[in-house]
Amino acid sequence: MDKTVQYCSTCGADVEKGIPPGDDHPRYICTACGCIHYQNPKLVVGCIPEYEDRILLCRRDIEPRRGKWTLPAGFLENGESVREGALRETYEEARLRVEIIAPFRLFDLAFVNQLYLMFRASITVPEFGPTHESSEVRLFFEKEIPWDDIAFPVIAKTLQHYFSGRVKGQFPFQSLELSESSSAIT
Amino acid sequence: MDKTVQYCSTCGADVEKGIPPGDDHPRYICTACGCIHYQNPKLVVGCIPEYEDRILLCRRDIEPRRGKWTLPAGFLENGESVREGALRETYEEARLRVEIIAPFRLFDLAFVNQLYLMFRASITVPEFGPTHESSEVRLFFEKEIPWDDIAFPVIAKTLQHYFSGRVKGQFPFQSLELSESSSAIT
Repeated sequence: MDKTVQYCSTCGADVEKGIPPGDDHPRYICTACGCIHYQNPKLVVGCIPEYEDRILLCRRDIEPRRGKWTLPAGFLENGESVREGALRETYEEARLRVEIIAPFRLFDLAFVNQLYLMFRASITVPEFGPTHESSEVRLFFEKEIPWDDIAFPVIAKTLQHYFSGRVKGQFPFQSLELSESSSAIT
Repeated sequence: MDKTVQYCSTCGADVEKGIPPGDDHPRYICTACGCIHYQNPKLVVGCIPEYEDRILLCRRDIEPRRGKWTLPAGFLENGESVREGALRETYEEARLRVEIIAPFRLFDLAFVNQLYLMFRASITVPEFGPTHESSEVRLFFEKEIPWDDIAFPVIAKTLQHYFSGRVKGQFPFQSLELSESSSAIT
């Protein structure tokens, strides 16, 4: 379990850990109302915005990894589809409108209870700029990518896979697991 | 927001709805400790188990839709990958071991804050049986599928897409949105 639950969010009473009837995972269960508080992985959605031979990165102006570069991505919200979430995050972080091309990678980051779903996306009008989350937003040729300053290992992996795909001209979707060690920036 | 939060799970104080600084979505925020209680969509993982020309379905022995047929699937748990989750659910619901072939469909069910990721999977040893979740587990030829008794619209869609793919001998991955109306069983 990733986050400790001390009190029931429904009635405010104490919770305790236990395995509910018919279940086989420990859950936080309310000692008063019996409400079971499930915890599940969260999905991050984002995209690789392409413009001719360049791709767009954002320089983070928030923690963690302030000052490092990343692709626009963030937690999927209730009530939106994965495409809607990727478009929203791209606008929030780069003031950029893109068109989704196709899903590219789904990475399991089970060690932090997260998944990353990254789409390829095309920039039709290269209008973008800094936001309260990004101090700088710019287009990069492959040879310009600041590999030593990419914010998160999963983003470095996504970029590596993307440029490998571009050599072949093929971008088949893949679902892959990243372990804590394999996702270290090397 | 799907589930009402009344009390802070960290300190037990009252929460109120508000938009945190730098955010633009309303959240439940603790009036005492300031903890923000995010709510995000949940991912359901499952598979389409194939054995020669047949696929395996489970007859639900739990609510909702007790007595209806479904593919093995359930909520992804913290700490597991999507493949691990699909294999676990298949064993829990059908006492069946499968080998994952490839991801097949990702369906957004934004209207219930859920996503379904369904894999194709192969049965090498056809050993399976009822469980506390499934009163009956069996293999079906396409012509035998109980279309009027499939438990959930997203499962009927998955089966329809699967059999369409089989006609062409191709199963390309697709990410699709299901609306509440489009996912009605027709």
